[in-house]
Amino acid sequence: MKIPENVEIIEVCPRDGFQNIKTLIPTETKIAIIDKLVDCGFTWIEATSFVHPKAIPQMADATEVLKTVKEKHAGKAGFVALAPNLFGAQRAIEAGADAITFVISASEKHNLENTRQTIAQSVAALTEVCKIKGSCIVRLAVATAFDCPFAGRVAPEQVLGVVEAGLKAGADEVVLADTIGTATPLQMEALLRPMLTKYPQLSFILHIHDTQGMGLANIITALNLGVTRFETAAFGLGGCPFAPGAAGNIATEDLVNMIHKMGIATGLDYEKIIEVTRYIESKLGVPAVGHMARFASCQA
Amino acid sequence: MKIPENVEIIEVCPRDGFQNIKTLIPTETKIAIIDKLVDCGFTWIEATSFVHPKAIPQMADATEVLKTVKEKHAGKAGFVALAPNLFGAQRAIEAGADAITFVISASEKHNLENTRQTIAQSVAALTEVCKIKGSCIVRLAVATAFDCPFAGRVAPEQVLGVVEAGLKAGADEVVLADTIGTATPLQMEALLRPMLTKYPQLSFILHIHDTQGMGLANIITALNLGVTRFETAAFGLGGCPFAPGAAGNIATEDLVNMIHKMGIATGLDYEKIIEVTRYIESKLGVPAVGHMARFASCQA
Repeated sequence: MKIPENVEIIEVCPRDGFQNIKTLIPTETKIAIIDKLVDCGFTWIEATSFVHPKAIPQMADATEVLKTVKEKHAGKAGFVALAPNLFGAQRAIEAGADAITFVISASEKHNLENTRQTIAQSVAALTEVCKIKGSCIVRLAVATAFDCPFAGRVAPEQVLGVVEAGLKAGADEVVLADTIGTATPLQMEALLRPMLTKYPQLSFILHIHDTQGMGLANIITALNLGVTRFETAAFGLGGCPFAPGAAGNIATEDLVNMIHKMGIATGLDYEKIIEVTRYIESKLGVPAVGHMARFASCQA
Repeated sequence: MKIPENVEIIEVCPRDGFQNIKTLIPTETKIAIIDKLVDCGFTWIEATSFVHPKAIPQMADATEVLKTVKEKHAGKAGFVALAPNLFGAQRAIEAGADAITFVISASEKHNLENTRQTIAQSVAALTEVCKIKGSCIVRLAVATAFDCPFAGRVAPEQVLGVVEAGLKAGADEVVLADTIGTATPLQMEALLRPMLTKYPQLSFILHIHDTQGMGLANIITALNLGVTRFETAAFGLGGCPFAPGAAGNIATEDLVNMIHKMGIATGLDYEKIIEVTRYIESKLGVPAVGHMARFASCQA
């Protein structure tokens, strides 16, 4: 088994986790959770999403959240903000985002549902975003990079095409997302092998949901292929607006537990992450999806 | 990735799942669940455990369960019974078990807690069992083959020693168990590589709990190393009596979903397994541990 010495974990609970919670979370609670995540040692935290507040009311306080945590934690952590379009990206950059996750689905149908734009229109918007990015890192996040809830299996060639277009548009980095959490390790391999071969200089980020329990199996597969950057969410929060019942992201604590036990360094404090999950549980009153927050008593 | 064409799944819910439920399950409910599991296509089902009824009252009806399902499903499925000692094995053989899972822990301390015998005493008992086994297959199940809740990490050499002693005692097959569900894929590799190298003719069975969410990651690792036989429990039932809060076995439906999607044949009917999980839920009123029974709506 080929494993790296270090793995980078990008914490996305404040964006992908919170956006799937219907009850509005007070802005100060969001900020308090982000404060605690910074204290865990995360160097990148996806803090919010600059979507239209009518689409996701939970994210209406995006500017306030981002500006506040930027001020409080300058130099300690970088803050990412999701943007589905040019206007969202402009707002994110104005609010001081250190990086933008600009989402384009590899599935045409999913991109239309998610952003009301064709893939070509999204790529054109990304081109404009890259012209105004300044020092902000622009990450192209390819949603439905494996399966689409509407179109089924997405061919690796389709994903390679979107990545090529996104890089040409000026994106700095690429996130590959199993948006609905249905990809198998074989699908991971089928996409990652040609992707890593074509772009050996790029440090891909994987974003995997754990809907069907294959999350860590997919991580192990990706580690073996050379991927070392992953987006996960504390407490396993998250979901898929177009797939009711889908579980959340891989729980950060589950991934950190596994890879720390494997001798891989993350720079993170596992016990503090567990404390954050307890805090999230007490404040949000939602059930944990991940294993370590549910069954953390079994130690060996 | 190296994957096999076929995988054999041994269903252990009626033993490992039920034994961890405190409320006594009516014998007819146990039999009804086993009936439905046979209908799913399982060729091996661990039906019960011949432990002392004072130790696990849930298994007091072992003889009745085993005799009944043997009569009803002769020729359709083989039935396994767990035995922790010679007396239990004698009862299992008398009741007509097609195979016995004879448990010896690789950790001396766990073996004492679990069976009140030293490993040497258990091996001596296994030798006696093998003298009376007749046509019954005797499977040595090595508990705590990776981690022990009392002694921590168990060295692969220790496990290799127990396997060697068990085979010398006359065991036909070997089950390697991550009893508390804390082993990482690296630990899988560290044990399985020397084990498969030393015994290339043996078709090892893996029994993995999913306490920390690493279950399917460990299965993928084991598949890559050449293991093709796994014990899982429908609905993810199970646990570890000496590790409160530990989750159950890998949920059968989670494993079947993953490997069917990977093009691996099992001979099992996935939809029927999901029906069994609904039946278990309605009859036992316990929450599902696995993902597919909790979040089965997300399809692609």
